[in-house]
Amino acid sequence: MAVYTEVGDEDLIAFVGQYDIGEVLSCKGIAEGIENSNYLLTTSAGPYILTLYEKRVTPADLPFFLGLMEHLADKGIPCPLPVHGRDGEILRRLCGRPAAVVTFLDGMWPRRVRPEHSAEIGAALARLHLAGADFPMRRPNDLSVDAWRPLLAGSLERADEVRPGLAHELEAELVMLEAGWPRDLPAGVIHADLFPDNVFFQGDRLTGVIDFYFACSDMFAYDVAICLNAWCFEADGAFNVTKAKRMLTAYSRVREFSPAERDALPLLARGAAMRFLLTRLYDWLHTPADALVTRKDPLEYMAKLRFHQAAIGPGDYGLAAGPDI
Amino acid sequence: MAVYTEVGDEDLIAFVGQYDIGEVLSCKGIAEGIENSNYLLTTSAGPYILTLYEKRVTPADLPFFLGLMEHLADKGIPCPLPVHGRDGEILRRLCGRPAAVVTFLDGMWPRRVRPEHSAEIGAALARLHLAGADFPMRRPNDLSVDAWRPLLAGSLERADEVRPGLAHELEAELVMLEAGWPRDLPAGVIHADLFPDNVFFQGDRLTGVIDFYFACSDMFAYDVAICLNAWCFEADGAFNVTKAKRMLTAYSRVREFSPAERDALPLLARGAAMRFLLTRLYDWLHTPADALVTRKDPLEYMAKLRFHQAAIGPGDYGLAAGPDI
Repeated sequence: MAVYTEVGDEDLIAFVGQYDIGEVLSCKGIAEGIENSNYLLTTSAGPYILTLYEKRVTPADLPFFLGLMEHLADKGIPCPLPVHGRDGEILRRLCGRPAAVVTFLDGMWPRRVRPEHSAEIGAALARLHLAGADFPMRRPNDLSVDAWRPLLAGSLERADEVRPGLAHELEAELVMLEAGWPRDLPAGVIHADLFPDNVFFQGDRLTGVIDFYFACSDMFAYDVAICLNAWCFEADGAFNVTKAKRMLTAYSRVREFSPAERDALPLLARGAAMRFLLTRLYDWLHTPADALVTRKDPLEYMAKLRFHQAAIGPGDYGLAAGPDI
Repeated sequence: MAVYTEVGDEDLIAFVGQYDIGEVLSCKGIAEGIENSNYLLTTSAGPYILTLYEKRVTPADLPFFLGLMEHLADKGIPCPLPVHGRDGEILRRLCGRPAAVVTFLDGMWPRRVRPEHSAEIGAALARLHLAGADFPMRRPNDLSVDAWRPLLAGSLERADEVRPGLAHELEAELVMLEAGWPRDLPAGVIHADLFPDNVFFQGDRLTGVIDFYFACSDMFAYDVAICLNAWCFEADGAFNVTKAKRMLTAYSRVREFSPAERDALPLLARGAAMRFLLTRLYDWLHTPADALVTRKDPLEYMAKLRFHQAAIGPGDYGLAAGPDI
């Protein structure tokens, strides 16, 4: 479900009148994404995406997200380009909410991930990291290691409802992650949520990266670790090392991993699994059963976490250990 | 919520390959309608709507619905035109469900109904009735007077939970409707669900009539009575006789009402209010509170029913009584 706010036709026409994008031909709510209200807006100038930002997005962060999309699109990353109004602004209000219009990207997100996809993802992620290097704004990652203890605290009491022993297991993992979390790896702008439903393909070719609403400043290799979790496990929980190897190889052809990044990969992958496990667990325990949002199973990430806990080095992800020069 | 079935990209590409409509560029689930799964499918040939028919539609009725749309579109009614595959078929299967591709119509449904809209509706409805005259298929209206007693029986025991006294009031109304329901008025193909969210406008001009999945063979004036209920009451429950008069006048300029139709209008309007009241009441009492469907308030139609009960003749709807020749 992705339409929380119903936009009236008259409000919409007045809103679109502030842009040089022709006249409204149609506007349909899109049943994708869960954070915001998204509309496929067609005007006489073509298709666009209209987004109304709902309460899960902090308005103060919107200039970062929209500015980043514009910066990356200018550098050739296939991401939505925010459209400026005639007044120069890209962020305005509609139906009482912050709203923006961005360009429409062709392609579909892959329901079944193939190894060809993960190679494209690796290369695109590296290009995104390089393209963000001179983006001047910063946004701390508010869902990284420092956020995990408060998140866990909010779920600890009832975690064992999901699986007996879960609370104790997560406590122990968190102590380890807090103690060992790297602080000095190469960092910059990361996407931080590059799951399959945020990437469009036509055939094997990547045509779009969307949903920059978790983007932030953090370690590049942590973004890679998120993608390992998001793209390289099969539906049955098995880790597909072929997909991982292709992703990491494609990444490193565009942006070489440092030896420290390679060695940190298993730990970063544990952290990434922990991050999604904790937010899913929190939502699982705090979302009313009748909410219009599909809750995602936190235990999927417990299985991923176990894989990473057993990994010894980057070789478990198909990558040679550093230094390999 | 209107996407019950998730269509995989590979399934979709194979499916679209059976049509001469170019290559898939994108496909997004639409958050409109509640009966079926609808996707806005964009191909290199342009935009289309892909519909997967879910369990509330009887598959045996689909040739009627799709055949009617094709018939009406051929006659110039602005409705979706089903696209034939290379094998000539318009109905096939996707993800285990009956599925069809229809043309995309520009326009937006009016969130706030203005008198200009109701005039356009009246004229379009009359044109639709005339255009359907030589459509060869028939489909009984399975939600007309004969269906109301079983519907009421399924809600009677708990109707007073919605409002004390409701069960008794509906019983009495139903006895009157069953005794007085006209059987000999001019009849043919009717839309039977022409609510604002099924009609697109650009400015004041009607550009599309959609959702023919309640269309059936019944009295034309009953279709008009449904539209009086759907378009001529304000949000506060007041009947807007200006809108009604414009609708009926515009209708009668295209297809003249017979004197018997005029005189039957208050009774038919009561019946139409009863039909939507009963289905809403049934859904209200039988839909689990956690379902992904928004339940509609049945009492909105109790207020409309009361207005029609108090109406004496067609003059209450802004129409002269018949005969007026």
